[in-house]
Amino acid sequence: MASKKVKLYFEPDGKRVEANAGEKILDVARIAGIFIESLCGGQGICGKCRVIVEKCAAGAPTEAELKHLSQKELEKKFRLACSCRVHGDCQILIPKESRGGRQRVVVEGVEAPFDLDPAISSLALKLSVPTLQRPMTDMDRVFEALIGNFGLRNVSIDYEVLKKLPDLLRTGGETVTAKIWRNSEIIDVRQGVEDGNYGLAVDIGTTKLGMQLVDLSSGKVLASVGMINPQVVFGEDIMTRASHVIERYETLEELRQAVLKGINELIDDCCRRAGVESSSILEATVVGNTVMHHIFLGICPKYLVMSPFVPAIKNPLNLKARQLGLKVSRSANVHILPVIAGFVGADAVADMLAVRLNRIEELSLLIDVGTNGEIMLGNKDRILAVSCAAGPAFEGAEIKYGMRATSGAIEKIAIEPETFEVSYRTVDNLDPRGICGSGLIDAVAEMFRTGIVDASGRIRDDLKTWRIRKGEEGAEFIVVPKRETKSGIDLSVTQKDIRELQLAKAAMYTGAYVLMKRMGVSAKDLDKVFIAGAFGTYIDKTKALMIGLFPDIALEKVSSVGNTALAGAKAALISKQARREAAEIAEKVDYVELTSDPDFPDEFIKAMALPHQELSRFASVKALLASTRIN
Amino acid sequence: MASKKVKLYFEPDGKRVEANAGEKILDVARIAGIFIESLCGGQGICGKCRVIVEKCAAGAPTEAELKHLSQKELEKKFRLACSCRVHGDCQILIPKESRGGRQRVVVEGVEAPFDLDPAISSLALKLSVPTLQRPMTDMDRVFEALIGNFGLRNVSIDYEVLKKLPDLLRTGGETVTAKIWRNSEIIDVRQGVEDGNYGLAVDIGTTKLGMQLVDLSSGKVLASVGMINPQVVFGEDIMTRASHVIERYETLEELRQAVLKGINELIDDCCRRAGVESSSILEATVVGNTVMHHIFLGICPKYLVMSPFVPAIKNPLNLKARQLGLKVSRSANVHILPVIAGFVGADAVADMLAVRLNRIEELSLLIDVGTNGEIMLGNKDRILAVSCAAGPAFEGAEIKYGMRATSGAIEKIAIEPETFEVSYRTVDNLDPRGICGSGLIDAVAEMFRTGIVDASGRIRDDLKTWRIRKGEEGAEFIVVPKRETKSGIDLSVTQKDIRELQLAKAAMYTGAYVLMKRMGVSAKDLDKVFIAGAFGTYIDKTKALMIGLFPDIALEKVSSVGNTALAGAKAALISKQARREAAEIAEKVDYVELTSDPDFPDEFIKAMALPHQELSRFASVKALLASTRIN
Repeated sequence: MASKKVKLYFEPDGKRVEANAGEKILDVARIAGIFIESLCGGQGICGKCRVIVEKCAAGAPTEAELKHLSQKELEKKFRLACSCRVHGDCQILIPKESRGGRQRVVVEGVEAPFDLDPAISSLALKLSVPTLQRPMTDMDRVFEALIGNFGLRNVSIDYEVLKKLPDLLRTGGETVTAKIWRNSEIIDVRQGVEDGNYGLAVDIGTTKLGMQLVDLSSGKVLASVGMINPQVVFGEDIMTRASHVIERYETLEELRQAVLKGINELIDDCCRRAGVESSSILEATVVGNTVMHHIFLGICPKYLVMSPFVPAIKNPLNLKARQLGLKVSRSANVHILPVIAGFVGADAVADMLAVRLNRIEELSLLIDVGTNGEIMLGNKDRILAVSCAAGPAFEGAEIKYGMRATSGAIEKIAIEPETFEVSYRTVDNLDPRGICGSGLIDAVAEMFRTGIVDASGRIRDDLKTWRIRKGEEGAEFIVVPKRETKSGIDLSVTQKDIRELQLAKAAMYTGAYVLMKRMGVSAKDLDKVFIAGAFGTYIDKTKALMIGLFPDIALEKVSSVGNTALAGAKAALISKQARREAAEIAEKVDYVELTSDPDFPDEFIKAMALPHQELSRFASVKALLASTRIN
Repeated sequence: MASKKVKLYFEPDGKRVEANAGEKILDVARIAGIFIESLCGGQGICGKCRVIVEKCAAGAPTEAELKHLSQKELEKKFRLACSCRVHGDCQILIPKESRGGRQRVVVEGVEAPFDLDPAISSLALKLSVPTLQRPMTDMDRVFEALIGNFGLRNVSIDYEVLKKLPDLLRTGGETVTAKIWRNSEIIDVRQGVEDGNYGLAVDIGTTKLGMQLVDLSSGKVLASVGMINPQVVFGEDIMTRASHVIERYETLEELRQAVLKGINELIDDCCRRAGVESSSILEATVVGNTVMHHIFLGICPKYLVMSPFVPAIKNPLNLKARQLGLKVSRSANVHILPVIAGFVGADAVADMLAVRLNRIEELSLLIDVGTNGEIMLGNKDRILAVSCAAGPAFEGAEIKYGMRATSGAIEKIAIEPETFEVSYRTVDNLDPRGICGSGLIDAVAEMFRTGIVDASGRIRDDLKTWRIRKGEEGAEFIVVPKRETKSGIDLSVTQKDIRELQLAKAAMYTGAYVLMKRMGVSAKDLDKVFIAGAFGTYIDKTKALMIGLFPDIALEKVSSVGNTALAGAKAALISKQARREAAEIAEKVDYVELTSDPDFPDEFIKAMALPHQELSRFASVKALLASTRIN
């Protein structure tokens, strides 16, 4: 029996979608490409996918909805899109806080120090004319000119180019321009002299896609664009997405298509901005963490998230754009940078490439803060890498009023030590809607500095201030009272939120600690600390040090290097040397499995304290606290 | 305005097809995949596409129909499918003579002298197990075993195989078998120890497709199959097919799909017969003339049939089966043998490979008789090749009662010199329906031997026999009187037919002559003559010499070598050395453009005579005639 059809009308998207009666709203929206915030991927855990369901025969509230929605909210027809099933036509309003907003996508990073030396060259060829006496094939005329004018032998031709060659050589003049990849393959032939070669650097982040369109003749960036990874409708983190694939294999292709669609939209966007034909894009480089890497390639990520967490392949790959479905020249080469391990991916390789960790003298710590943070320690002699499962706190998940760094997210907080008055700044200076990762670090660091929380992370509920109160989840600190918020709700940091952040920062610190131990060095031996990733750009390094996110080191040695993943991808795009070094990095780096280190459990527990149980390790924080702490 | 739809019912196929009113029957049949004989590709020239149109509002007979159909035939509702347009529903009977019948497809040729040394090897690998302490990637475990057990480094993996690797390595035991192409690429991985590798040799003839399924472990042929090239519905010869593409570019893809469909049907057939999974076929080799080669690759054949007749490429190609649409393993390599020139294709290279012309000491003439005949002369030191536009006479086209070598075709004729009584044999010993190429050579040779035609090719209408009469096209010789034919029509050889054969044989002889002249040798210097091609198998070499098809040489030096195109393709399939030699042949052969040779016009005219105007060049025929000729 065919199931009953119902019609759903989504506002403010204005989309009408037909669905089967009994389907969940989030599933319907996902298929229709309508974005509803969901940090847990529809598992009823995060409670972020709140929608208002009007005029509907919806099922009774589920356990998850009763947990996440107050009685008052239920009366106002709030439901969780992941849990509410529709049984009749209805209208669904997606409130602002569930729509994600315009996310700040940082696509800029440090400029990696590589000379322009791309894989593509343009060679103008004057071809001889075939005659009955000398009936040279089209290909041989091209080969003749390549050898005669450039001494280039043993060149092959891409099959798609071969197919168009006969007409191409006869509709123009006698001069054509061959586009040669690595001096070994003809990947395009154009009429006349034509030098325009373009390339794409692509960073597939779990949350964000970043892209740069680059003029390969100059190395100049013509357009930088970014968007939310469309895969987020399947779940915010890689574990959730991988688990979807494990449950239902077909999800792999759905996930691949989702990210591909996003990338192809960004390509359109880049080309429009720069006035470049997408068919002139002859090369792309792609980075991403290992799960993103596998999904983009259509490789099942199942074994990446199961012990012993091994990738299918770590080597760099060169594939044709047509094999992957990228909307650039069908013959373009797509260079996928190598990965290191299941949780240290091509993005980490790109991070290292961007700061050229493999060539510098100074002993450096490179930290990419995130749900799955990566930490690299080393220099030209040796590099160690570790992955830290920091959990979602830095991304705003599992945090009561956590959100991503989109419009209205509180990103900066200062607390007046005597009055506990809070001053804050939001993304785009809009009304506060929640707190993003850097805001949470600020908040906790300030609460610690001002004595609102103690070194163990406990909120001092004995302090006399209206900002501290007992909430449903224990003590909480009101950052913004409801009179200042549009939603009419107090925005607070709860005891549970602080615990989540402690877990996250402890993981990052322990990762760095274990690497230093393995390398036989201590914090004082570090010459540099690089904080990478878009998130890193917004971290206040003083505050981060205050909570013990990284080892105690003079702050002038600490620098934010921005989106090094994309910067590394761009380096590999414009420089064959960078590509060689990326492969070298992947070979060279020793991956350390953090949880199997015997010191890990003890060190992790000690690192939970603010800034650390052994305050001697954080002498500068100790000094800072002594000078500013009052309570 | 949408055009009116009409329904056509084809007998004996029993297919109902919807068409637009006003469409030609042949076009409708072509699209529906219904075979109607057509030698000229629907241009109203050959008159072979006779059908009986019943219950129909068909248009008035066209000029072409009035030319090719008698008043009596028109009364019996005979029409030409290429010319008759349908304006209402109708029933179309395709009579036996327009259906082609079961064509004899010779797939056997000489066994080429190459040792078994295929490009694919099966290597059984015992893989190590990844652990948290040693989290090796899937690929690295395979590489480790390849290096450790076989010393094989720098191996890549096909992308399609990479995608299935993670599951494959985990659902079986620790031993897998890697299928390696040329020691450089993994093109399949199977669980356990698995040695079955299969390959396909494919010959794409203008008229016929031939295929062999080969066990690559033994070199044994498991199945040999053949069929009419489905492209024949677009026209019998390469010029007609190329002209269709020139008129309408989309026809290229239609032609490509037609031949691909045929090849894929043959693959199914082979696999069924041999009990082999098509996904176990890991390599294929393909030969064909240059137009077939280009169309199969999706390259426009336009410039092959326009002066200076140059191919897009002559080099051998290795493409993935998935790029071409072949229904074998998606990762299988398809090796396309090299071509030499616009009219000397990969089939000619395969011919030479099969007899190893490039390595033998003896000076040899290799003749592939056909519409576009190829002649090669040489040995290990030097090879010359020429293409002869013999015209369609050998294929039975432009011949009044000509037909292909299908059931009922007269293929052998003897004439009693005194009574002119004719004895004959037909293909499959069925009632005579027409005369095929070898039958025509026999007929003309016998008519010449018995004095029915003179050396100029003129029918001696002064001879007293009922078999010689004045027909519509001049004098004709009745081979089979109507009382012995099912159609109730006298089957005759006309003066015009003889002229067509003279043109064809003159072209072949002149080709051989020009090559001998360029090489500075004469007939007595020839050590061997190989007659190649399916057609060559059936030629009576005495009769062929009698008409002067090839230079006068002792008949014991002449041998039929069968389908050497397929034999050469098979050699390249089972032997890497053969593949190298094919490339060597393509490089080595000097192509001679026949028509640009200054002696060509005179020589061609002299070669029109039977056996030749200079009888001194055919001393053995002269002797033969002196001994047997009576009239």
